[in-house]
Amino acid sequence: MSYLNQASHPLAPITAAEIKSAALLAKGRWPANVSIGFKAITLQEPEKHLVVGYLEAERQSKRLRSIDRKVFVVYTIKSSGAPHEAIINITTGQVEHNVRLGPFEHPNADPYELMMVEKLALEDPRVKAELAKLELPTGAKVMTDPWGYGSDCLDDEKRMFQCFLYVRPTSDPDGNHYAHPLDISPVVDATAMKVIRVDKMPTGADNTIKETSPYKMQPVNDYLPENQNLRTDLKPLHVVQPEGASFQVSKVGQLGERITWQKWSFILGFNQREGMVLYDVHYDNRSVFYRLSLSDMSIPYADPRHPYHKKHAFDLGDAGAGITANNLELGCDCLGYIHYLSAVLSNADGEAQNMPNVVCIHEQDNGIGWKHTNYRTGRAAVVRNRELVLQSIITQVSNYEYILAFIFNQAGEIMYEVRATGILSTQPIDEGLSVPFGTVVHPGVLAAHHQHFFSLRIDPAIDGHKNRLSYTEAHPYPRSEWNPHGTGYYSADTVVEKSAGLDLDASKNRFFKIENSQVLNKVNNKPVAYKIHAPDCQKIISDQESFHFRRSEFSSHNIYVTKYKEGELWAGGKHTMQSRGGQGLRSFTERQDNVVDEDIVVWVSFGMNHIPRIEDFPVMPVEIIKVSMKPANFFDKNPSLDVPPSKQAFNKSRLIERPGLIEEASCCLPKQSKI
Amino acid sequence: MSYLNQASHPLAPITAAEIKSAALLAKGRWPANVSIGFKAITLQEPEKHLVVGYLEAERQSKRLRSIDRKVFVVYTIKSSGAPHEAIINITTGQVEHNVRLGPFEHPNADPYELMMVEKLALEDPRVKAELAKLELPTGAKVMTDPWGYGSDCLDDEKRMFQCFLYVRPTSDPDGNHYAHPLDISPVVDATAMKVIRVDKMPTGADNTIKETSPYKMQPVNDYLPENQNLRTDLKPLHVVQPEGASFQVSKVGQLGERITWQKWSFILGFNQREGMVLYDVHYDNRSVFYRLSLSDMSIPYADPRHPYHKKHAFDLGDAGAGITANNLELGCDCLGYIHYLSAVLSNADGEAQNMPNVVCIHEQDNGIGWKHTNYRTGRAAVVRNRELVLQSIITQVSNYEYILAFIFNQAGEIMYEVRATGILSTQPIDEGLSVPFGTVVHPGVLAAHHQHFFSLRIDPAIDGHKNRLSYTEAHPYPRSEWNPHGTGYYSADTVVEKSAGLDLDASKNRFFKIENSQVLNKVNNKPVAYKIHAPDCQKIISDQESFHFRRSEFSSHNIYVTKYKEGELWAGGKHTMQSRGGQGLRSFTERQDNVVDEDIVVWVSFGMNHIPRIEDFPVMPVEIIKVSMKPANFFDKNPSLDVPPSKQAFNKSRLIERPGLIEEASCCLPKQSKI
Repeated sequence: MSYLNQASHPLAPITAAEIKSAALLAKGRWPANVSIGFKAITLQEPEKHLVVGYLEAERQSKRLRSIDRKVFVVYTIKSSGAPHEAIINITTGQVEHNVRLGPFEHPNADPYELMMVEKLALEDPRVKAELAKLELPTGAKVMTDPWGYGSDCLDDEKRMFQCFLYVRPTSDPDGNHYAHPLDISPVVDATAMKVIRVDKMPTGADNTIKETSPYKMQPVNDYLPENQNLRTDLKPLHVVQPEGASFQVSKVGQLGERITWQKWSFILGFNQREGMVLYDVHYDNRSVFYRLSLSDMSIPYADPRHPYHKKHAFDLGDAGAGITANNLELGCDCLGYIHYLSAVLSNADGEAQNMPNVVCIHEQDNGIGWKHTNYRTGRAAVVRNRELVLQSIITQVSNYEYILAFIFNQAGEIMYEVRATGILSTQPIDEGLSVPFGTVVHPGVLAAHHQHFFSLRIDPAIDGHKNRLSYTEAHPYPRSEWNPHGTGYYSADTVVEKSAGLDLDASKNRFFKIENSQVLNKVNNKPVAYKIHAPDCQKIISDQESFHFRRSEFSSHNIYVTKYKEGELWAGGKHTMQSRGGQGLRSFTERQDNVVDEDIVVWVSFGMNHIPRIEDFPVMPVEIIKVSMKPANFFDKNPSLDVPPSKQAFNKSRLIERPGLIEEASCCLPKQSKI
Repeated sequence: MSYLNQASHPLAPITAAEIKSAALLAKGRWPANVSIGFKAITLQEPEKHLVVGYLEAERQSKRLRSIDRKVFVVYTIKSSGAPHEAIINITTGQVEHNVRLGPFEHPNADPYELMMVEKLALEDPRVKAELAKLELPTGAKVMTDPWGYGSDCLDDEKRMFQCFLYVRPTSDPDGNHYAHPLDISPVVDATAMKVIRVDKMPTGADNTIKETSPYKMQPVNDYLPENQNLRTDLKPLHVVQPEGASFQVSKVGQLGERITWQKWSFILGFNQREGMVLYDVHYDNRSVFYRLSLSDMSIPYADPRHPYHKKHAFDLGDAGAGITANNLELGCDCLGYIHYLSAVLSNADGEAQNMPNVVCIHEQDNGIGWKHTNYRTGRAAVVRNRELVLQSIITQVSNYEYILAFIFNQAGEIMYEVRATGILSTQPIDEGLSVPFGTVVHPGVLAAHHQHFFSLRIDPAIDGHKNRLSYTEAHPYPRSEWNPHGTGYYSADTVVEKSAGLDLDASKNRFFKIENSQVLNKVNNKPVAYKIHAPDCQKIISDQESFHFRRSEFSSHNIYVTKYKEGELWAGGKHTMQSRGGQGLRSFTERQDNVVDEDIVVWVSFGMNHIPRIEDFPVMPVEIIKVSMKPANFFDKNPSLDVPPSKQAFNKSRLIERPGLIEEASCCLPKQSKI
């Protein structure tokens, strides 16, 4: 492809030039004296049928009809704070859509806005007056984490931030202030840009508010290595690939990449809200998925008391998994032979912001892939389970980290893995007290319970775009002449006919499959399918009238299916800040669309109810959750049969006869039968 | 410790010399002309209080009072087949216990017995006559897999084996005969050592039996690498530890080992039935578990038709995870720097049989352990998640493989991992037919549905031997002045008071904890505990009157708790061959013992309902199930805080700018804040 064609690839992430043009075109809609702040400038993906046609032509090396490049822009008028969204056609220079958002629609926060809010909160005289009463020691510094204000429909029309305050005990700028939370919480109006209220928060077992008094500084509880007595007995472990990695990369536009590895082929994109996006996923030239991404997150907290009852983060909609992606460092975040994807996103001024190393791409060994030993001859056949990992790490609402990864293997499986880590969001509690809605993780420090919900959006294309969702259950046969001993059971499939939210049921071994009913397995005549293995979790606990429930539109079922509709990418709705519900996945499903043999979208909701342990502080050991997508009668045999056998000549393992002493490697001898 | 002390360590696996003495002492109970066959000679662990005292003294470097070495012996009188069990004191030379088993008690099978049964089945004239009707091509060879006869209480007092027959199409001794099953099944009386019946099996959708007719040989479906068109684009991946491994090993007796790694310390033993056994597990000199082992397995099949309704394998009780352990090969079964444990078990003649490399011990990298980035300074702190793996692989009833592993990490967590692989047990089905109790995986070949149940036996010692089991649930607060917005929830603990079987409940986020109520966390006053994370699964489907249900005494709940009782090691009961129930875990719990602050045992039942995919044939990609044991308020902060930071200088990763081309490694630069 020529550079021109590359630049115009419909799925290529937006470029610095496109961001620049978009910003100019948006500003061009306003008088020169109107100052504009940008919330997001991101790729507006073309209508699916256009992209599908393009990809087909590309696959058949036909002439490519170029498709207009468009961006989705969210911006505010700085003077009034009035939020707008626009769709701008970069190719034609037309602003195709430009509207002011509704009264209760608030765009995402951006780092510039958060920095301003932090500044305002700490400089407000009422806040300073309260802080003075703490009589903090010299060197101690007050910090603030602004949180989206959430919604309870009570006087929350304004765009606001609830600022939680903490004390950093020393001059170390990396000291852990979450070990020293305060009960003072300024509320900032982010439109008027002023503190409109200073909340005092309960610290006991009830709603009682205490007068601010001198602060008892507790011991520090730091996580930085220089403050630990580090282990000295961990030996290095290197992953070495003397012939390089097994994957190939080619450019898709300036910033996208097509990755091919072990019969897999897909396009890797990256955007402000979702971060990593995979498109056009094929295995051995067979279509499997059209688009895969993390669509949304919702983290409601358990403390029922004001203002904690509004604590409910939507990390993607409120901020973005792309814009908060870490700059991954070689040898720190990924081990082995690493290739990085870098991105360009926009900043608040509508300028291109380089985002280096937002995704690391590498292979890993995940133990044995399959094995069988013929006990009659002693002949063992074994292959290892090599995986390709695409990892991105995001830091959210200042304290929390999520390590997000798509993992491909040689058996035609794709895993989506979330590792929750980082620092718990803490609040003050009277020393010595325990409460049932949180765990004391440090003297005077409470980590409230909270639920994590993740929505994995799967736009399937199992041997084509017309697919269906079904689920399989196992049931006992009744006692009868057919089942005289009460031991028999069978499996039964149920097709989901209308868009809906559905649940797992371990008691029936219920699992979901995405099928293509038009393509049958040539050996057993079953429709080709991919099955989804997702862990069950407690659904959202907040009651159905609550705003936590209304806002978290993907947290009341394990799996949702909808008919594809342009623009329906975000399970929590387009604008999640102070959202009131009604614009997300729950609403999509209420259309009751037919989803049998249609272009469908499957949304997997998974997560955990985090009842903190003290071991989760001051920084949390990774909690790992995995969703798997596995072929189910898609192939006609184990697709990893052709993986080269696991042999010493290839793996170069080393034998340790005695600790410390490394012996020479032995080679694989033929095995003896045990008989 | 002197060698003498070592040899007499109460937990040391039995030695060749001990096996020899035991066999002599057992034979000595009978006239010289009585010929004896040995089923098992295995360590009879001393009474717990004696071992606990010994380990205490060992820990305090006090003088060690040696404890008599005893073995548990199961044998048969060859002429009559009469099964016996004995406890023999090697130290004193006394046979302390020697009884004939009851009428319905059958000891485990052994490789010698199975080989004899195979021979008999294929040489029987009635079988040969049936096989002749198949008119098999020259070069084709009939193979048989003998299965324990199971039980339905109908004329099954005799010790019997149901032999399933297959055709190996070529002269290749490693050809896959499971792709060519037959509907002829001889039943062998293993006492009289003769074929007592030749069953014909239904191959349609009902119970109809067909006359044997010429066999249609289907295409081969092999798994061996030489029969595949292997991938050529997989590059080597080596795990290199230039300074060696991070663990130390010291001998416990002749064959046991004490392993210390990253603050963990435990004894690794190995026996005929359980395979790997861990004892005296400590972290940073604090007691965590007294004994950990896989106690049993149960795999009931779904086909209700005779004789398939009796298909129900108890891999540990019927054969043994120790005696079927693979001889692991360097660079084939484990990657990296490997230390092996070897064992000595007894054969049918009561002779010592060397079992080399039955456990591989090595470290692996499991991604990031924890991370936090201070977005204000851009300073990132990250550690990797190094793990210690003890892996053993067993081949069961000829066809199936289980890869079993205990995995330790640096955050005080222990995982037990099962990888199911190997070859599905197949049966013939009329070509083109589908049935709801199995999946067609090859023309004319059915893989019946089956459930896998594993019982992980946890003998806890959380800061001492008096522990309790409790479970935590999360519940919503009712709407009230306390919870005006309907968002609040709390967690509540329930203590299990009597021995029982209990279930998971994702809808309440129910998880189980093993607590020591006498030792409180010094920061939050909660009892120190380890929590158990186990995946839920469908319980046994066979009805409560069925013999599958009665025999599988650990498959109707997720978690069981019992009061410790000497000798209660096996969830399925002491003798599982043709067992009728009433001797295993379900019976233990019926004692209704008090289990609050007692010496308790916790049994985790986990598994899967395997609805085969065609991708599981001819050999199955690993299906991975994990159980985790994690500290819960056992420490006073994240125990992996002291892990050295993940740095390029230590990890030596490599940057791949462009595929194929390896650039020089860059080092970790300080990060820039995104603000």
